[in-house]
Amino acid sequence: MNPILEKHIKKYIQPSEEDISLFSSLVTFQTVTAKSFLLEPGNSSKNEFFVVKGCLKAYYLDSKGARHIIQFAIENWWVSDFEAFYKNTPSTLYIEAIEDSTLLTLSYENKEILFLKSPIFERYFRILLTNAFIGVRKRILSSLQKDATERYLEFCNVYPSIEHRVQNNHIANYLGISPESLCRIKRALKNNLTN
Amino acid sequence: MNPILEKHIKKYIQPSEEDISLFSSLVTFQTVTAKSFLLEPGNSSKNEFFVVKGCLKAYYLDSKGARHIIQFAIENWWVSDFEAFYKNTPSTLYIEAIEDSTLLTLSYENKEILFLKSPIFERYFRILLTNAFIGVRKRILSSLQKDATERYLEFCNVYPSIEHRVQNNHIANYLGISPESLCRIKRALKNNLTN
Repeated sequence: MNPILEKHIKKYIQPSEEDISLFSSLVTFQTVTAKSFLLEPGNSSKNEFFVVKGCLKAYYLDSKGARHIIQFAIENWWVSDFEAFYKNTPSTLYIEAIEDSTLLTLSYENKEILFLKSPIFERYFRILLTNAFIGVRKRILSSLQKDATERYLEFCNVYPSIEHRVQNNHIANYLGISPESLCRIKRALKNNLTN
Repeated sequence: MNPILEKHIKKYIQPSEEDISLFSSLVTFQTVTAKSFLLEPGNSSKNEFFVVKGCLKAYYLDSKGARHIIQFAIENWWVSDFEAFYKNTPSTLYIEAIEDSTLLTLSYENKEILFLKSPIFERYFRILLTNAFIGVRKRILSSLQKDATERYLEFCNVYPSIEHRVQNNHIANYLGISPESLCRIKRALKNNLTN
């Protein structure tokens, strides 16, 4: 089993050696180069991806061609067009590698086999989904109640150390503010720290 | 076991009689009158509520006192301040009954007992969380890509027949539009149907 995924799993559950071996046999190893696409709108989304190393973004292009980044994925994150994956509908998202990335790929069919043979992984994915659901709901609430500086600090907390890996305008896009506003916020925070 | 919850559970998993009895022993029956609060900001959120009958709303008041409805809950929905429930932090939400409602209450401790003794319910809650996560993410995407009429139709699909149970201004609030805009949308849809 890949040690990074194994460590991640053991953060949440205590699987047996057999459980781990099974999971290991059901994922495939994949490397992608920066700027390549794992998913594009209209494609079927048959896989979830666990990031062993690298950085990706999931985004949507609106009818005017404007990009809206809805998720970054760094080490230890799972990424997919989850609606398309679970509902077997065409994807509406792009998933694009920002850096050369190493991934473990789990197909829908293999995930069902995993649950059937090692139901302990129901718990692992239930806990991850709980956290993901809380995260998305928190993001909605934050957009209502928090100013851009607070949202930026929350972002840094969710994605530690992403700062130097992702372009400023991508972070601004995720936060729903202009790149200029983000620069002002970062400058003000830096000044506060050094004063 | 309450037949409505049992039916809901059996939509997703095949529990044994013992599993059902256990779940039944861990929930408590509760009735609340319209306009009463199940949760207020600052309280600890130790329970999740399954709606057997009735209608509730979960909302947030921003610093200017403006209300933002983030969820309605009707029959077969679970409702809680999920972040406060799972992270054991004070609630940031109000949960208020819109109608006299009948609920089944599941505490955090009893939910953990349920998972320990009947792990099949990991699957039930994993599937519900998957759907909830997809729903919230879809709502974010809809706010970016869809116009108010499309979002209203999507809302009617998610909350069938809620139309006559919830005030117009509450639905408008949930959709992030003015009550006047919602009236115009409903009139236009009605005219389209009758033409």
